[in-house]
Amino acid sequence: MLENLKEEVFAANQRLVASGLVVLTWGNASGFDPESGLLVIKPSGVSYETMKPSDMVVVDLEGKVVEGNLRPSSDTPTHIEFYKHFAGVRGAVHTHSTEATAWAQACREIPAYGTTHADTFHGPVPLTRFLTEQEVAEAYELNTGKVIIERFKDLDPLAVPGVLVAGHAPFTWGKDAADAVDHAIALEAIAKMARLTEAICAAKPAPGLVPYVGEKHYQRKHGKNAYYGQK
Amino acid sequence: MLENLKEEVFAANQRLVASGLVVLTWGNASGFDPESGLLVIKPSGVSYETMKPSDMVVVDLEGKVVEGNLRPSSDTPTHIEFYKHFAGVRGAVHTHSTEATAWAQACREIPAYGTTHADTFHGPVPLTRFLTEQEVAEAYELNTGKVIIERFKDLDPLAVPGVLVAGHAPFTWGKDAADAVDHAIALEAIAKMARLTEAICAAKPAPGLVPYVGEKHYQRKHGKNAYYGQK
Amino acid sequence: MLENLKEEVFAANQRLVASGLVVLTWGNASGFDPESGLLVIKPSGVSYETMKPSDMVVVDLEGKVVEGNLRPSSDTPTHIEFYKHFAGVRGAVHTHSTEATAWAQACREIPAYGTTHADTFHGPVPLTRFLTEQEVAEAYELNTGKVIIERFKDLDPLAVPGVLVAGHAPFTWGKDAADAVDHAIALEAIAKMARLTEAICAAKPAPGLVPYVGEKHYQRKHGKNAYYGQK
Amino acid sequence: MLENLKEEVFAANQRLVASGLVVLTWGNASGFDPESGLLVIKPSGVSYETMKPSDMVVVDLEGKVVEGNLRPSSDTPTHIEFYKHFAGVRGAVHTHSTEATAWAQACREIPAYGTTHADTFHGPVPLTRFLTEQEVAEAYELNTGKVIIERFKDLDPLAVPGVLVAGHAPFTWGKDAADAVDHAIALEAIAKMARLTEAICAAKPAPGLVPYVGEKHYQRKHGKNAYYGQK
Repeated sequence: MLENLKEEVFAANQRLVASGLVVLTWGNASGFDPESGLLVIKPSGVSYETMKPSDMVVVDLEGKVVEGNLRPSSDTPTHIEFYKHFAGVRGAVHTHSTEATAWAQACREIPAYGTTHADTFHGPVPLTRFLTEQEVAEAYELNTGKVIIERFKDLDPLAVPGVLVAGHAPFTWGKDAADAVDHAIALEAIAKMARLTEAICAAKPAPGLVPYVGEKHYQRKHGKNAYYGQK
Repeated sequence: MLENLKEEVFAANQRLVASGLVVLTWGNASGFDPESGLLVIKPSGVSYETMKPSDMVVVDLEGKVVEGNLRPSSDTPTHIEFYKHFAGVRGAVHTHSTEATAWAQACREIPAYGTTHADTFHGPVPLTRFLTEQEVAEAYELNTGKVIIERFKDLDPLAVPGVLVAGHAPFTWGKDAADAVDHAIALEAIAKMARLTEAICAAKPAPGLVPYVGEKHYQRKHGKNAYYGQK
Repeated sequence: MLENLKEEVFAANQRLVASGLVVLTWGNASGFDPESGLLVIKPSGVSYETMKPSDMVVVDLEGKVVEGNLRPSSDTPTHIEFYKHFAGVRGAVHTHSTEATAWAQACREIPAYGTTHADTFHGPVPLTRFLTEQEVAEAYELNTGKVIIERFKDLDPLAVPGVLVAGHAPFTWGKDAADAVDHAIALEAIAKMARLTEAICAAKPAPGLVPYVGEKHYQRKHGKNAYYGQK
Repeated sequence: MLENLKEEVFAANQRLVASGLVVLTWGNASGFDPESGLLVIKPSGVSYETMKPSDMVVVDLEGKVVEGNLRPSSDTPTHIEFYKHFAGVRGAVHTHSTEATAWAQACREIPAYGTTHADTFHGPVPLTRFLTEQEVAEAYELNTGKVIIERFKDLDPLAVPGVLVAGHAPFTWGKDAADAVDHAIALEAIAKMARLTEAICAAKPAPGLVPYVGEKHYQRKHGKNAYYGQK
């Protein structure tokens, strides 16, 4: 059942680890098949090292397991919200990648500081509000999805393929699971660049090198009488 | 003698290196067998590259070597304190992992800034006091264990599976040696996230990109007349 | 056609990934053959994992594809400016490497803080101005090249083998594609060192360790009665 | 001639790359044979990838090449100073490793902030003065050695096995080349920890997570009704 999609979702999950976005079991990727209305998602809390494509769990849009012996990711209700409400989205990823999570924990949107950002996100990376205590108590993962949908009321999810959940971590999505992983990689990179950009802007120049030492190093390597290397 | 436990402890020690938590010989993992009342621990100052499972040292709760040709880790008396005083703990790890050690050196507890933290630690990562000069002189490693136990007077070690020793570095523990390694990996990740969270909160937005350059980059890749890529 | 140059350019592109300067498809390297007046460049938006030397595209100095089935890098007009205006330059690289990009986003030149910098760059790493809205609308990549050439009016491109484009990212060049990659690696390293230098200069000493704990650690490893390790 | 020492010095140079302390050709290791009064050192500007043990160059204490077809490291006169003036030192390493170089560029000694530092360095990591313009002009590398010796007038080089040269980068040494590499690895680690320690001490706590979200995450994984994972 949905064997190709299982392979895709399995590969997407493994790429999260290979890309350094996931340690231990802190992440999950899913894919959606619009014809059957079913999604395929990583099982909950299973080690990436022993996981096989056949361990992927098939779930319907009510969250019921349709196929699979393992319990699906506990974040499944959040993924389902994307497939229900974001037209054209067929892959989703959740990680606790370090740099993006730090912005989520700082409760700040990521400003668009450069073209690397603009290549992937059309505008700042948005931030949700905190869930209320009642929303957490009643249906935590479902309501995590709902606050994301709420935040996208005036945003196009295909032009802004990711979000930071306040105090939690990022979710990204795309036209398939692999695309959602690309967006998770891009988000982590621009989150780091944005942090460094602000640090460099706020910093004050250091006293620096005496000029004749710099000149000596340049000349011993590149000058007329250079003596570095084998030439 | 305790061959399975030796394999487990050996594997735990190797995973510390593979996870980037240990360089040179700066770390050790142990495991405890409650039936025999014995622990198995890494030998002191031995290279991870040449170490074998049979090099693991078996020690009793008085710190006497029961089996093994090598001297046990110099931190053995600290590990023993955990097995004596923390019910249910059967694995322990000590590293000088960079981010957690920086918090220990800064003498600050790690606040619970997000769900990544809350997934592993029930409350802040605690910090011990400094040992007194006399405690250092009399029995340094034993007293390192004792100040940790003292710090946990009102804490549940199974809900808070690690600690920062002031000016020194982290210790973590768990239901077995592999679990203690998981907690060491988690601690290093949340230590870094917490540092970045504070930096991002304190930072001021940078002037940023002129909007028409960002718009151009988004459109050349995703717009109607996109010309990036092969399609 | 230009088979050796294709191999060189292919290898240069792959080394960008291996060196951690490029993730996803965020980078490109080219090489120039002065005899034929042709350049060889990476195809646009093609994955580094599946790319072959024969996928490299041959382009003339007007930007017309002379050989190849794939569309050349969208940054080709920028590379062409280097080969037209920088005598002796026969290789060029564009990346969005994290540290250098952060300086570009912060719109700051990188000061020459040490000999590592001086070994490669004769003076600060320069920064271009932003393109005007009209320059972006008319011919974005060509005009990116033109603002770089403009910035080098009084600079020697062989002595200053790279630049930061404001709000965008670095370009580097050299006597061949491999040399341009070396300069991209060097630029990323000195960008990080410069950021850290300013941070360390601005920082205030921390309270630090009680001295008797430090003394104990030194002595247990190196003192007369050392007991760390196996000897 | 000195074949064992060549193997040792070759292995030490390769370990600098494997440990991430050296990129491109930015580093060199040497070893000293006190019986013959000769040292073995890396050739200048040669790639680590193609280098062989037989490429190592044998040099006497006057800096004359005794054996080898390649030019020795341009930093050879600095290494010679160590072997002439530091009794018991038989291995030396020079790198431009990122974190230690940033302290050198910031012209700050590295304070002893923790036991990781104290395990290797007995006291702060010292900093030399800048060379004078005349010292640079007359004999740059020799005088780099001399300002290091000058800085150690009242220090024991075996207890403080490394130094930062102002505006330049670190040198380390030890009882053989492998020991000098260990000290280079240790120095890079403590340089980073010291930078982070100061940053964490200076930082202000962030507002942080609403407590009921943290509680939910802890309980869904570890509480009585936990539903994360497969059990």
